[in-house]
Amino acid sequence: MDKIIFQKKIKIIQKQNNSLVCVGLDSDFEKIPKHLLSKKEPIFEFNKRIIDATHDLLCAYKPNIAFYEAQEKKGLTALIKTTDYIHKKYAGIPVILDAKRADIGNTNKGYLEATFNIIGVDAITVHPFLGKEALQPFLDQKDKGIIVLCRTSNPGAGEFQDLVVNHPHLGKVPLYQAVAYQVTKEWNKNGNCCLVVGATYPKELAQVRKIAPDLPFLIPGIGKQGGNVEKTVVAGQNHEGRGMIINSSRGIIFASGGTDFARAARKETETLKNLINQYRES
Amino acid sequence: MDKIIFQKKIKIIQKQNNSLVCVGLDSDFEKIPKHLLSKKEPIFEFNKRIIDATHDLLCAYKPNIAFYEAQEKKGLTALIKTTDYIHKKYAGIPVILDAKRADIGNTNKGYLEATFNIIGVDAITVHPFLGKEALQPFLDQKDKGIIVLCRTSNPGAGEFQDLVVNHPHLGKVPLYQAVAYQVTKEWNKNGNCCLVVGATYPKELAQVRKIAPDLPFLIPGIGKQGGNVEKTVVAGQNHEGRGMIINSSRGIIFASGGTDFARAARKETETLKNLINQYRES
Repeated sequence: MDKIIFQKKIKIIQKQNNSLVCVGLDSDFEKIPKHLLSKKEPIFEFNKRIIDATHDLLCAYKPNIAFYEAQEKKGLTALIKTTDYIHKKYAGIPVILDAKRADIGNTNKGYLEATFNIIGVDAITVHPFLGKEALQPFLDQKDKGIIVLCRTSNPGAGEFQDLVVNHPHLGKVPLYQAVAYQVTKEWNKNGNCCLVVGATYPKELAQVRKIAPDLPFLIPGIGKQGGNVEKTVVAGQNHEGRGMIINSSRGIIFASGGTDFARAARKETETLKNLINQYRES
Repeated sequence: MDKIIFQKKIKIIQKQNNSLVCVGLDSDFEKIPKHLLSKKEPIFEFNKRIIDATHDLLCAYKPNIAFYEAQEKKGLTALIKTTDYIHKKYAGIPVILDAKRADIGNTNKGYLEATFNIIGVDAITVHPFLGKEALQPFLDQKDKGIIVLCRTSNPGAGEFQDLVVNHPHLGKVPLYQAVAYQVTKEWNKNGNCCLVVGATYPKELAQVRKIAPDLPFLIPGIGKQGGNVEKTVVAGQNHEGRGMIINSSRGIIFASGGTDFARAARKETETLKNLINQYRES
């Protein structure tokens, strides 16, 4: 991997492919098409065909490591091979590992080794709960993307994220806004931070955009989770009509369970790309 | 594994060994004694000898998965073999996987498979940020321990955990107390929840004990991190002088880097066990 920083890599590929779509490689072994199960490496085979069918229509791939961990060593092999395949064949496309990691300082080094050296991705998602000091080893990775959970897409996200806190600079705001502020003003010294904000909460997305005008957002929740594309783009885009990495996983990769799965994935990616672009301001 | 619930298993072994000590198997490959490196499986070999030397002096083992992930597939193998070794040879001792996981509902199933079926531990640590609804698949594991981060031991823990929130029942309290309340009152329907509270913050520990009088606490921060044993035990014990799983990792397993490492680990475990017991009320 070259040393182009993640944020720059995202900008370049978003322009090149004119797309803000991220395809989530949540390649659940139970759901991959039956005709691939006779292959030696069904998960990698599935990913490879999805990648070949979609690479010119998107700006990133995002495997969620949970689906790979569930397949023990062969899952880890599939994940490493998938990342390597993307980097070698489609060099400009960054890979985001959705791993939602976070431990105390010393321990994070193990996760760094696994994420950036062994699996070799360009960016990782992290929990904010332990604070900047704990996450410093991640934040020190200047060329990688450190994508901090801010307002997640799940129905119960508000239990803590919506609690009104008394923030020293913002005053009384929901916790997720305090996270957005801290990451924007305190954590982003290397210009490598992004935020996760769910498409299922467009009002909150707009609030986060106010606090973090320049940060890229990774936006899950489109598709099966019910997020609305128009509302998401209107609320989430920056002044250049970008600043968003809009993810769809199941809605794309499992669009068809038959032998036409890759073609179906391409069609869904293209549809989402066009729908998003329809609402972008520039 | 039998189906005795984690909480009960902890109580039984704490009585049997008269110990609240948990040994953290943070078996950093870079730090294990040099004379083990010629072995076929150095990490497992290291763990096995630590376990054989300490098993009668403690109530749990806690491997942190980050150190194993850093060793790719051989790390995963070492972790699986270590858990299996403890369960087969010292059946009453639970294994806690310190993995600090948490994703949205659907995705957690992958983590469940990896944690409880592949690695086969008895309990796991989880981040609270996504809320109960997201973590329900973990909370549904009735016989497993679900150990929720509440007030962590790191110096910068307060960045979010100390923000004063407006909680519907508690009124104005720091976020960590809101987490303690929610887990105690809302998450613990299956009686399988515990909380992580750092020994480095005895005042906060006492506050959490008030909110959660009956929940077991996993307490990191003793030893190298500087937590004081007396203050921890006084602040953290429940009415039975228990309710704590007090972890030490580096201070025990790397007490010596020489061929006497297992003996040194035993000595440190015994010292910590006795020190803790000195301050227990019953």
